[in-house]
Amino acid sequence: MSKQSLETIRVFALGGIGEIGKNMYVIETEEDILIIDAGLMFPEDDMLGVDVVIPDISYLVQNKDRVRGIVLTHGHEDHIGALAYILRKINAPVYGTKLTIGLVEDHIKEKGLRKKTDLRLIHGDSRITVGQLPVQFFRTTHSIPDSIGVCVDTPQGKIVHTGDFKIDQTPVDGRFTDIDKLTWIGKKGVLCLLSDSTNAELPGTSPSETSTGQGINEVFEEADGRIVITTFASNVHRIQQVINAAEKENRKIAVVGHSMSKVIEIARNMEYLHCSDDIFIDASKVEEYDDNHVAILCTGSQGEPMSALTRMAKGAHRQLTIESGDTVVIAANPIPGNEKSVSRIIDFLYQLGADVIYGDANVHASGHGSQEELMLMLNLLNPTYFIPVHGEYRMQAAHAELAEKTGVHPDRSFLLDKGEVVEFSKGKAKRAGKVQSGNVLIDGLGVGDVGNIVLRDRRLLSEDGILVVVVTLNKKSSGIVSGPDIISRGFVYVRESEELLEEANKKVTSTLEKALAENVKEWSTLKSNIRDVLSRYLYEKTKRRPMILPIIMEV
Amino acid sequence: MSKQSLETIRVFALGGIGEIGKNMYVIETEEDILIIDAGLMFPEDDMLGVDVVIPDISYLVQNKDRVRGIVLTHGHEDHIGALAYILRKINAPVYGTKLTIGLVEDHIKEKGLRKKTDLRLIHGDSRITVGQLPVQFFRTTHSIPDSIGVCVDTPQGKIVHTGDFKIDQTPVDGRFTDIDKLTWIGKKGVLCLLSDSTNAELPGTSPSETSTGQGINEVFEEADGRIVITTFASNVHRIQQVINAAEKENRKIAVVGHSMSKVIEIARNMEYLHCSDDIFIDASKVEEYDDNHVAILCTGSQGEPMSALTRMAKGAHRQLTIESGDTVVIAANPIPGNEKSVSRIIDFLYQLGADVIYGDANVHASGHGSQEELMLMLNLLNPTYFIPVHGEYRMQAAHAELAEKTGVHPDRSFLLDKGEVVEFSKGKAKRAGKVQSGNVLIDGLGVGDVGNIVLRDRRLLSEDGILVVVVTLNKKSSGIVSGPDIISRGFVYVRESEELLEEANKKVTSTLEKALAENVKEWSTLKSNIRDVLSRYLYEKTKRRPMILPIIMEV
Repeated sequence: MSKQSLETIRVFALGGIGEIGKNMYVIETEEDILIIDAGLMFPEDDMLGVDVVIPDISYLVQNKDRVRGIVLTHGHEDHIGALAYILRKINAPVYGTKLTIGLVEDHIKEKGLRKKTDLRLIHGDSRITVGQLPVQFFRTTHSIPDSIGVCVDTPQGKIVHTGDFKIDQTPVDGRFTDIDKLTWIGKKGVLCLLSDSTNAELPGTSPSETSTGQGINEVFEEADGRIVITTFASNVHRIQQVINAAEKENRKIAVVGHSMSKVIEIARNMEYLHCSDDIFIDASKVEEYDDNHVAILCTGSQGEPMSALTRMAKGAHRQLTIESGDTVVIAANPIPGNEKSVSRIIDFLYQLGADVIYGDANVHASGHGSQEELMLMLNLLNPTYFIPVHGEYRMQAAHAELAEKTGVHPDRSFLLDKGEVVEFSKGKAKRAGKVQSGNVLIDGLGVGDVGNIVLRDRRLLSEDGILVVVVTLNKKSSGIVSGPDIISRGFVYVRESEELLEEANKKVTSTLEKALAENVKEWSTLKSNIRDVLSRYLYEKTKRRPMILPIIMEV
Repeated sequence: MSKQSLETIRVFALGGIGEIGKNMYVIETEEDILIIDAGLMFPEDDMLGVDVVIPDISYLVQNKDRVRGIVLTHGHEDHIGALAYILRKINAPVYGTKLTIGLVEDHIKEKGLRKKTDLRLIHGDSRITVGQLPVQFFRTTHSIPDSIGVCVDTPQGKIVHTGDFKIDQTPVDGRFTDIDKLTWIGKKGVLCLLSDSTNAELPGTSPSETSTGQGINEVFEEADGRIVITTFASNVHRIQQVINAAEKENRKIAVVGHSMSKVIEIARNMEYLHCSDDIFIDASKVEEYDDNHVAILCTGSQGEPMSALTRMAKGAHRQLTIESGDTVVIAANPIPGNEKSVSRIIDFLYQLGADVIYGDANVHASGHGSQEELMLMLNLLNPTYFIPVHGEYRMQAAHAELAEKTGVHPDRSFLLDKGEVVEFSKGKAKRAGKVQSGNVLIDGLGVGDVGNIVLRDRRLLSEDGILVVVVTLNKKSSGIVSGPDIISRGFVYVRESEELLEEANKKVTSTLEKALAENVKEWSTLKSNIRDVLSRYLYEKTKRRPMILPIIMEV
């Protein structure tokens, strides 16, 4: 190992800081770049029409020859969802534990990238070398099995990234957070800790995943009719507990919804889910069972309009509908921004006469540690420097306060923004500028071809619609040959606004005639005249500002 | 009083049921119609470009000769905000208490309706007759002063509407809910109770408004720098407590934001707010005071982008900016649907270095009673029939369960939908069909000219934008004279997609040429050919479905 190339180590996030989503962290030396996670984020309200958002990886593409590996901490979309987009531009081995790799494999197969991708299986006790960097891992507990944290050895000390974690004392699969190894790492000397800030504002300890099993059991014991239960598809432990409850109460399970079926298939194949062979039935067979001998496990815990739960509730599902007497369990909390859609579906289910169990701490537990767990992690690792990650700014700030309580002086905590670099040299850290970072919006097949102008237009169009004004002019005489015609979409009911549009047409015509008579020839002037007169007139009459698109044809 | 005309009494809601917002309840006899409240609602996410939503009042307009009065229970927008729209179509006296009338007056003055409106002042102990119906009131406590409930006397028994209420044992103004009168009404015999369901899912008792005063006091005692505090503009009691804390700690208050200034002006004129004359300073004078001698009271508790708080935070306010060292207090909870925008502003304030106090039960208390209060109301009034109102369906359902606990058999609780009528005859109630009801969307000056088709178009436009295809044809030869030209908005960055659009143009041209060669003359066929070929091509290339608007001009 050339020690010289490790004299300066840079750490930064391309995503996952100042936000929940699209996690992507980078550890960089002169010769090597190690990427931790490659996640996506779902679009904000103002990103109209955008499907998903991924980090801007320009910096990595510019330095792709130094990218030696991508380590994935677990299989959630906000940690693996951008991988396919990144692998199109960067070629590097991808490291992950068994379930993570299973989910990734499925993901990149869909995108036609399986063959060219070098997937490498690791486990909690693997040791690998990425470029010149020795990397080891530690098992954690989270709302998906097989999650790990990452520890990178450098001559200046260890750099540790926790991944998403809580410290579950009674995990469903009996695989505890590896406190033993964390202690050992802590003793060896941690230069810098990057730790999950999601629940840094919550006092106490997050409840164990096992506690939701009791709540689910109670529902299964008490319900007389059918049970419909929804949770995050990736929460294999929660699904296991649903299976356990169903087996105990002698109910068959019909799985409904693409992502739920997919995850269950993968998790069963890899033996992360344990159940009798005949517990699952096809959705088409539900009718053949008594109501109290069947349960439906489905997607839709966030009230997504196209999810199985919503479709079943609205009678839009091919095989199943939710009926009076059903017990519907929403074993998840709304992700911020989804409160309204979740509340709508709950209301709808009530109206159908279903018994709805929601917002109930007995059937949902967060996968992220609360303050006591975060402080335990800090105490175990005792880092010299601290970078709170995976959270909005206020969660990062709350986490830095916790770090201070455990002995990390505020001067040694870095509240970073995306792209901001912390540089370590001789065991000392300092801020060192910023690399390019930001959001890349993906709409359909387009990666990055939707930006501010397109979004601004979509916003304008969404608010007051559009008026297209077409007019054909004679090339020689500059007289109006045809039109102006005005066509509107999303503006007003045309039938009830004939008069308004006729009057608008007259205004345009007279404006055009006047300009042409004055010998105005530039189309841009004619167009802006049309836009001005129409915009003013419509605002006066309707107080709306539709987009106005003048088109001049010449014959 | 002609008893005969009172033999059948109909009760229904045109708004406020199955939703939080646009409250409007109707009590109808053969000869008279009494309206309780006339509120607006803010648009749902899918109502693109819509400003506000009001109830469909077609039924009232059809029967406007029988409308004898509109009683307002309090001055919140979701109870008075639709009044101006309704008064344009229906002429009837409007009854309200002093502060309510004060707020209404301001409201309808803006709309030019003050002169033609017959506003009538009532107080908690007024008795009026609306048509043939004797009506009395009872004082309640809510998050705005001067709130009342309504009791209508009928030969079949009393019909009581609580308005919005909690039962605050320590109200800020010392004006308690009139338990005495409620007891008396209960003893006289209540045929039907309509009661506020907002917090029917919450166990226990809602905290007193006074409790927030303690929290606010603590903030004022402890803060060293400036205090910026935001709450709902109409929460006069909360504002009073801010004033009290400021006076105690020797701070001046600058009021920022239109609605906040307006309410404070009205409330001071009417003596609902008590303070020394010199407590308020102009925003431009804030700089003249030491940081610990000034507080800023502003709008923006819901993270509204144009509110004073957001503008001050983003440096977009004329006079004030929020700075490191400021303590910002958000003395309100996010209204469902606003969680994300509130969380965004909190994060932003943190990044500015402000100390942010939010989501803190010490500085906010709901204005709606929880389960114990709702049951107390039910027990006091002991109604024969019960209609839970003011809530989404699940809250109505929860409220009906509470009613059952207090002795109202489920058969005598009506979980209504908007427009559904309950008819009382000889003291017995039954469901009796439905009157027209629904949402009327207001966009700018247009009332009801935006409906499903316009909204569908706006949604399509917002997702993938629009492509306009214009072509000029020769009337006689049917040859292409000019075009096709393709113009897009909100679809892709045009500069980066030249090739795509050129190829699209070729597809359209060849499709058109082929159709014209085959002698297709109908424009509708040509247009649908254009739409088909373009839509297919673009979806294949981009997986997007922009709106496609073909325009054919003829010369």
